[in-house]
Amino acid sequence: MSLRGRMFRNIQTHAESTIDKISVIGAGVVGMAVAVSILGSRITKNLVLVDAFGDTVKGEVLDLQQAALVLQGPTISGGTDFSTTQGSKLCILTAGVRQETGETMQSLAQRNSDIMVKLVPDLVKYSPETIILVVGNPVDVLTYVVWKVSGLPHHRVIGSGTTLDTQRFRILLAKKLNVNPADVKAWIIGNHGEQCMAVWSSVNIAGVRMNELNPLFGSEGDPENWNQIYKLLVSANGQIEQLKGYTNWGIAMSVAAIAKTIIGNRKVIFPVSVNANGNFGITEDVFIPLPAVLGINGVYDIINLKLTPEEITNLQKVASSLMMTQKEIVIKGADIDCRCRRCRT
Amino acid sequence: MSLRGRMFRNIQTHAESTIDKISVIGAGVVGMAVAVSILGSRITKNLVLVDAFGDTVKGEVLDLQQAALVLQGPTISGGTDFSTTQGSKLCILTAGVRQETGETMQSLAQRNSDIMVKLVPDLVKYSPETIILVVGNPVDVLTYVVWKVSGLPHHRVIGSGTTLDTQRFRILLAKKLNVNPADVKAWIIGNHGEQCMAVWSSVNIAGVRMNELNPLFGSEGDPENWNQIYKLLVSANGQIEQLKGYTNWGIAMSVAAIAKTIIGNRKVIFPVSVNANGNFGITEDVFIPLPAVLGINGVYDIINLKLTPEEITNLQKVASSLMMTQKEIVIKGADIDCRCRRCRT
Amino acid sequence: MSLRGRMFRNIQTHAESTIDKISVIGAGVVGMAVAVSILGSRITKNLVLVDAFGDTVKGEVLDLQQAALVLQGPTISGGTDFSTTQGSKLCILTAGVRQETGETMQSLAQRNSDIMVKLVPDLVKYSPETIILVVGNPVDVLTYVVWKVSGLPHHRVIGSGTTLDTQRFRILLAKKLNVNPADVKAWIIGNHGEQCMAVWSSVNIAGVRMNELNPLFGSEGDPENWNQIYKLLVSANGQIEQLKGYTNWGIAMSVAAIAKTIIGNRKVIFPVSVNANGNFGITEDVFIPLPAVLGINGVYDIINLKLTPEEITNLQKVASSLMMTQKEIVIKGADIDCRCRRCRT
Amino acid sequence: MSLRGRMFRNIQTHAESTIDKISVIGAGVVGMAVAVSILGSRITKNLVLVDAFGDTVKGEVLDLQQAALVLQGPTISGGTDFSTTQGSKLCILTAGVRQETGETMQSLAQRNSDIMVKLVPDLVKYSPETIILVVGNPVDVLTYVVWKVSGLPHHRVIGSGTTLDTQRFRILLAKKLNVNPADVKAWIIGNHGEQCMAVWSSVNIAGVRMNELNPLFGSEGDPENWNQIYKLLVSANGQIEQLKGYTNWGIAMSVAAIAKTIIGNRKVIFPVSVNANGNFGITEDVFIPLPAVLGINGVYDIINLKLTPEEITNLQKVASSLMMTQKEIVIKGADIDCRCRRCRT
Repeated sequence: MSLRGRMFRNIQTHAESTIDKISVIGAGVVGMAVAVSILGSRITKNLVLVDAFGDTVKGEVLDLQQAALVLQGPTISGGTDFSTTQGSKLCILTAGVRQETGETMQSLAQRNSDIMVKLVPDLVKYSPETIILVVGNPVDVLTYVVWKVSGLPHHRVIGSGTTLDTQRFRILLAKKLNVNPADVKAWIIGNHGEQCMAVWSSVNIAGVRMNELNPLFGSEGDPENWNQIYKLLVSANGQIEQLKGYTNWGIAMSVAAIAKTIIGNRKVIFPVSVNANGNFGITEDVFIPLPAVLGINGVYDIINLKLTPEEITNLQKVASSLMMTQKEIVIKGADIDCRCRRCRT
Repeated sequence: MSLRGRMFRNIQTHAESTIDKISVIGAGVVGMAVAVSILGSRITKNLVLVDAFGDTVKGEVLDLQQAALVLQGPTISGGTDFSTTQGSKLCILTAGVRQETGETMQSLAQRNSDIMVKLVPDLVKYSPETIILVVGNPVDVLTYVVWKVSGLPHHRVIGSGTTLDTQRFRILLAKKLNVNPADVKAWIIGNHGEQCMAVWSSVNIAGVRMNELNPLFGSEGDPENWNQIYKLLVSANGQIEQLKGYTNWGIAMSVAAIAKTIIGNRKVIFPVSVNANGNFGITEDVFIPLPAVLGINGVYDIINLKLTPEEITNLQKVASSLMMTQKEIVIKGADIDCRCRRCRT
Repeated sequence: MSLRGRMFRNIQTHAESTIDKISVIGAGVVGMAVAVSILGSRITKNLVLVDAFGDTVKGEVLDLQQAALVLQGPTISGGTDFSTTQGSKLCILTAGVRQETGETMQSLAQRNSDIMVKLVPDLVKYSPETIILVVGNPVDVLTYVVWKVSGLPHHRVIGSGTTLDTQRFRILLAKKLNVNPADVKAWIIGNHGEQCMAVWSSVNIAGVRMNELNPLFGSEGDPENWNQIYKLLVSANGQIEQLKGYTNWGIAMSVAAIAKTIIGNRKVIFPVSVNANGNFGITEDVFIPLPAVLGINGVYDIINLKLTPEEITNLQKVASSLMMTQKEIVIKGADIDCRCRRCRT
Repeated sequence: MSLRGRMFRNIQTHAESTIDKISVIGAGVVGMAVAVSILGSRITKNLVLVDAFGDTVKGEVLDLQQAALVLQGPTISGGTDFSTTQGSKLCILTAGVRQETGETMQSLAQRNSDIMVKLVPDLVKYSPETIILVVGNPVDVLTYVVWKVSGLPHHRVIGSGTTLDTQRFRILLAKKLNVNPADVKAWIIGNHGEQCMAVWSSVNIAGVRMNELNPLFGSEGDPENWNQIYKLLVSANGQIEQLKGYTNWGIAMSVAAIAKTIIGNRKVIFPVSVNANGNFGITEDVFIPLPAVLGINGVYDIINLKLTPEEITNLQKVASSLMMTQKEIVIKGADIDCRCRRCRT
């Protein structure tokens, strides 16, 4: 009789719980930071890591498992095999390549799209009821591709969008005003990265709208130079990449915050990449970052932000530009392999 | 168009999430302390309170709902109607009457049994896959009754057992040794209350067994008087009741700890009331507190504690005594109404 | 040699840590709910309870101590003696009497003032660097009295003010809009209770100002009846009192939130009772609830809310009315005993 | 007037709080994992990162600061300048070089010792009351060096010791028995790494001692091969390094757990490197990993583990071996620069 048999009278088989199971696809610097942020915030008790590189992912899982005691005993597993993701409530796609020097956004979009086309069908096969959160770049276009390939309804496929940019915006505003960032409401929308749009007109702290205190707030002519903050946040990614070689903690914590509202059905509003067809005069399926109410079933609502006419025009331009990139993407093998409901019907 | 309609483009109906839903039955001092302990430890995002007294429970729910912002937005609801408990993963029964002066344990058992017979079938109707945790007194006998009436497999029905007594034991040991109670492993088993048994032979702190440092540890002749601790813990309930009129925080926090391991499938070991048929030579269905591994499906294993022959004899006496009380209970209406699978087949 | 001596080689005396010590004065239903909310949110590792009724407080402390294991081992102590509060970083005053049927606010203010005059000097003697948070009623007047008697600078003495009312306001708005209350910024100011003022003009959700979507928002003529929410929140206290006899969880959780921002130096903004001398044309020392930035040293800043002329007039009326109550209070024994710096110089 | 001036009436200067300030020295893969683990567990509200490489640390601080909103607003700062660490309650030394292929432990010890000699005096200058936690390798010898150079009392200087090895041991035992690792008490002592000692005789789960169920438990002849676990844990570091190139999460989470018990004065027992002079017949100042009670003032007690004579002999051998390495270390410049009280008197 085994030591366990002598120690215990077994009553029933131990079950694995999937009530809050999260899979992180990609065990690179971003994927690992996402995993650690989610475990640190106790968002799930069942985390799976998948990566194409078996050694890396096996090493990371072994390393993380040793932290399980401190983390109050979550199940941490993973490998190269998608079957371990079975029954996930949320799949976070951090897999993908990074932009090479001189590479166009179109080329990056195509290369990462090819990766999505390969892995998404497997993911959806094992977790047909999952929500997918896309973190790779260019995030908006990639979210569109994942939606097409997944066959999931659009409200179950979102991208991290401008969540990090918005987070940065609020923190920089909070720092300059010396208040807690939780009291700052401000949005970056339209496009993650250098073409993102700061919605200066809606910035308010604790219910006070900034442009009522300073009508030039955020504009070029403002003597207090608040638009300096926009420049800082737009250049932050590049600056950090130059300093440490890549970015990961900021994006990871913002992804963890999205995961928390989804798993917890909390209905917090995040500026994630959503299908904007029907908002702001957009009439095609294009994913752009807009503030949306999120919960256990994905996107519940999209906010009709009060934008100035100029802001609306800008947003439409961004949408057009994303549409163009989107249309040039070749979703390889989609005729044959795509599980997309549209393709199949 | 409503303000909400102007503010949002709705994408899908908002869903209620039941992945970690907990219902607390009974909104008295214990039930409320349990509810607050569970909410404070963020164990569920969906809590329901049910009580027969509509005013009380409505008042408590209104009061708690105002705390939702601080608690990061859990759903808190309730009333007199059991339908609100639908889909619960865990139901905690704190309803019941307290022992009156001079009342026998048998009489108390019968009165609280009558209450269980009334409410358990409704509970199981709305949550057929729930785990039930019984907190009322006498907890071991009551757990047996709830098991019989519920028709659930025995590993899905547990009582709080000697969890509080064990918690007290560890804290008193930790205090006297000036270490954190988390480093103390010690058990009170056999019966909640004044006939509980301290398993002195297994007490160890951080891997050091106390009776190896002091062979008289816990015995009457011990010059250091460690058994004083047993007297303190046995009298604690009475002492607190005399001082403040009732006890609630200690039992509530220990119930929250059990809820956390169940909802989180954590497999932590608690001395809960379990069906001891098959342990320590017991050959009938009787619920007594024994250390058990708990998770999302209830009881996974019962520990075969290494007891001295004297301890085993004591335990069997306790079991016999509980059997006697149990057999005298009249489960009213069980012939007709009992949903118990045994009764129906 | 004691068992402890055999088990351990002692290196140095165990120290008590006061880095985040909090004392709760008053162990009634509100005080206990405050204590439990603070412990549940892990805001302190050193909590002291003091009450004039020795039995009650001894019973409550014993009961809470049994929960220490679940709460990861905080130190919980208390009694009738103020010396146990030594070195507190924050003292929360929940002691006091409740309004009797037919009693005027002036009479209640005098009765609770008499209690403050008795206990505050002792409190300050043992914790001269503490921040004091007043929770009793009428909270604004009482905060003034505590300030006078304590001799502390005004930025170290605050009242819970309209924190609970504001919390209610946000939760009711969030519920009607089906979003998380964390995304709602809205203020109740001016006076805790039935004369509180909802600042409808500043209500915004996620950066969208409600009166831009509905110009009648909050007014009497609004077809959507949003001002119904004001009526609900004003009547909430009375409604809960009628249903369950008293209110405690809502106020307790809002007090815990204030404690968290103070101990954590978080600089979150709360509508606490502060000395409004210098704001909104007020030129005397009067404590009224205004949104303020709070941290480890108390009040850092008071927000200059953008109020309509009508709202400013209302606020000034409230201030005048509070001044009148304040002036009629007899701070008994202040000539002789008051430690107030103003009295002494 | 600035926007801030229009928005707020300032009451007093905003203060920085150092009540739980932690500095992490070294922003490499281990240092960053430590920082993120500490922030994720909300152990401090004031974290400083220092590294000799200005670009790296600046990039990491910028990246982490963007996560501040999700982390509820801690202060995160850092750079190359030690003055930012002023007033730290705990300094964690992760700086140092890694062992090169073929390098002896003595050579590694010397190289990392040289680094400690350089940075520790600066650290102690700015935080004379700090506790220092050494994480670099060889950790035991390095802890001795840091103690000598720091001039701090020995109970304020500890090394991570065998905390990670112990954590691994417990997790592997828990996994094989299918229980939560929190219920497992087991120790690895003597030396971090390949010469660490598993104290099989004290392993117990929930109060049950394993060698009473299986007398061969942990020995070579055991048919259940439990000592396989020892081999797994000893090889884990090497295995993970081979797979992913380095280890960080496991050590980081165990360091965070130590930080939590120190800052929280929790008195949890960890097998940290402590001055063993006086334990197990050791009569010289040598730091080896032994289970110790930790709190806000550092080491309170060292456990007198009940070891078998064989285990004691092994431990003494380890101590001798460490003494030899220790004695060969040249603490460069110690005559001149060392702030060590022994050197100065």
